[in-house]
Amino acid sequence: MGLLAFKARMIQVEQKTKGTAHKEHRASERDADSLFVHFPENEPLELDCGTSLSPFTLAYQTYGTLNEDATNAILVCHALTGDQHVANPHPVTGKPGWWETMVGPGKPINTDRYFIICANHLGGCLGSTGPTAPNPATGKPYGLDFPVITIADMVRAQARLIDYLGIDQLFSVVGGSMGGMQVLEWASTLGSRVFTAIPIATGARHSSQNIAFHEVGRQAVMADPDWRSGRYLDEGKQPRKGLAVARMAAHITYLSDEALHRKFGRNLQDREEITFGFDADFQVESYLRHQGYTFVDRFDANSYLFMTRAMDYFDLAADHGGELAKAFEATNTRFCCVSFTSDWLFPTEEMRAVVQALNAVAANVSFVEIETDNGHDSFLLNEPELFDAVSGFLSAAARTRGLSAPAQTRDEEV
Amino acid sequence: MGLLAFKARMIQVEQKTKGTAHKEHRASERDADSLFVHFPENEPLELDCGTSLSPFTLAYQTYGTLNEDATNAILVCHALTGDQHVANPHPVTGKPGWWETMVGPGKPINTDRYFIICANHLGGCLGSTGPTAPNPATGKPYGLDFPVITIADMVRAQARLIDYLGIDQLFSVVGGSMGGMQVLEWASTLGSRVFTAIPIATGARHSSQNIAFHEVGRQAVMADPDWRSGRYLDEGKQPRKGLAVARMAAHITYLSDEALHRKFGRNLQDREEITFGFDADFQVESYLRHQGYTFVDRFDANSYLFMTRAMDYFDLAADHGGELAKAFEATNTRFCCVSFTSDWLFPTEEMRAVVQALNAVAANVSFVEIETDNGHDSFLLNEPELFDAVSGFLSAAARTRGLSAPAQTRDEEV
Repeated sequence: MGLLAFKARMIQVEQKTKGTAHKEHRASERDADSLFVHFPENEPLELDCGTSLSPFTLAYQTYGTLNEDATNAILVCHALTGDQHVANPHPVTGKPGWWETMVGPGKPINTDRYFIICANHLGGCLGSTGPTAPNPATGKPYGLDFPVITIADMVRAQARLIDYLGIDQLFSVVGGSMGGMQVLEWASTLGSRVFTAIPIATGARHSSQNIAFHEVGRQAVMADPDWRSGRYLDEGKQPRKGLAVARMAAHITYLSDEALHRKFGRNLQDREEITFGFDADFQVESYLRHQGYTFVDRFDANSYLFMTRAMDYFDLAADHGGELAKAFEATNTRFCCVSFTSDWLFPTEEMRAVVQALNAVAANVSFVEIETDNGHDSFLLNEPELFDAVSGFLSAAARTRGLSAPAQTRDEEV
Repeated sequence: MGLLAFKARMIQVEQKTKGTAHKEHRASERDADSLFVHFPENEPLELDCGTSLSPFTLAYQTYGTLNEDATNAILVCHALTGDQHVANPHPVTGKPGWWETMVGPGKPINTDRYFIICANHLGGCLGSTGPTAPNPATGKPYGLDFPVITIADMVRAQARLIDYLGIDQLFSVVGGSMGGMQVLEWASTLGSRVFTAIPIATGARHSSQNIAFHEVGRQAVMADPDWRSGRYLDEGKQPRKGLAVARMAAHITYLSDEALHRKFGRNLQDREEITFGFDADFQVESYLRHQGYTFVDRFDANSYLFMTRAMDYFDLAADHGGELAKAFEATNTRFCCVSFTSDWLFPTEEMRAVVQALNAVAANVSFVEIETDNGHDSFLLNEPELFDAVSGFLSAAARTRGLSAPAQTRDEEV
């Protein structure tokens, strides 16, 4: 997106927003292209851990135009290491937005029809307040003094942004993986503000195995002496190796045995024969190292600890006396739940538990299990069945909601 | 096993052995209870990497009595981080032998009937020559100067031990995981010396995903500054944190999602509520940390690198022009192949490929897939179906081979 288009979009947003008390600023070394909303000290965010956070900032992106009634807004919730750059080039890596396959003009989440919002999570590291932000008490980066936040805390912060943008009810909340957890949390806690919800490749809790993998990642970060007990920013260090190892381990869980076999098999990397050594003989090793070492350029190690912990703590049934159905009692939200056959991080059974809970409260729910060998990452990839499911579900819901069709929308704008 | 019983056993072994050129010694700080065979400088072991190794030592254990014809010997091949202490307390940890469920008097691998041998792998760290051994060229521990060995190299070293013990043909070679790779290698390369073969929870190659997990482990070790580019022993260091992280990641792959859910679920560790921090709130975290940090007390980090690399390099089909069946051409060995439904490290499909190759050469093969949620580690656990399969298969083969039944064996000894 060019700067002019971006500015035009920002003006639209400013015109639409009802709130004025929050200073909007765009100053960020790493991300000049995001919008920012600042919630001042006298408007603290209450946190599940018992404390509150103030002040705090959310960095976000929007795409498309909010309609007059503010009824066409879709909140996209990003995954563990994602960010607000859904459909524009990433300010650090220069790569395309992480969901350009899904979000854009004429795409399943159609920017010609809907107004799309995505905020960097609270606790994140791309503009929203997190462990890299200065702790007002010390003037130094929070580090481990940042409060341990939950999925519900992140959702509460997002709700502040939605308030600020003058939106009473979101037309949809959509997200995969950790983003899907937020979708479920929105539907559970703020259901009246969510017309439709699309949780993808997620579950109502983090499983034992998933906690285990996250713990390995955290231990890898903390084992790096350059982590400095979390004070690395203050001491001019970066636990690059530890974070890279964490990312490598996690990355395997995002794929599938079949996908790895199809992509790499036992193919060698730029060599005819094995070298009898510990270099990256195999393509899969080279790929994994690349994934690890490019990740550390764009992500903060402490933020990784906090984000993984938030996922571990997520357990919607436990929050409702052990009965998941109670999380969705009397819901009017329409759900489209999506899982993937080869996703072993959030297998279909986890989503089925959500669907059963929704059925138990007679919710309006459709459930799509998509056959693919792409594993957990399927939600980010070119999966036509996913696009069809999301596009079809949103179009039907848009008719119900009385949203005008894209062509008309464009006519109205002219 | 008491020391007297052990001595009696050793004398038996010494009487049976034909070779005399090899100095047998038992001096080891960490393991006073093993037997050792030393292959001198003028008897080098040719290695796949093109060099040779000499001198070298194998540490081993035996159980039961070798019969007059030396036809009742079973070679047990241990897994990645296993060792020769199959059915006696571990000299470092004091824990029971790793396969006491399987090996012992009246057990499926019946020490009343068979003579069981298990050697610490070449490259291992419990008495056999590996990266912790002194490099004759420098007098310092080999470290990364130890040659990168393969499964075939380990098998060649084991064959030297079998020669030394005066055994022409093994009644059986049996092992799980990496031990199972060795079983397949024995049957392929030294088939005439193997009457029966029992590969368990293994495959004819290491998959892309498995290489990926090993690479994560190696990167975790190498990321630890106390690894000192492999020279840690020489510099009085130990990459404890890195090796612990490697073990934690690997350990998850030995279990299954279901088993972790059944054992730990989302249960908290010694607390009523989550602590909003990075301590081990969850039992699974505590368990994993324990697995990691106890492992480093008994295992050497460089040895871990070499062992994982040997598994990565294993590809029996590739060694035979891409046709796995050729690895077993004209085999007379009887096979009992075992896989477990919840093993996602070596899923049944990997074993099925072996069975199909064996069928293609009209081998005598039985194949058991055991229903269990215990994952890859099932071969080490209390799995009655596994015991039945191994016991039944061995008994039938023993009759074919003309081995006397256990009771008679005991009578003869009296």
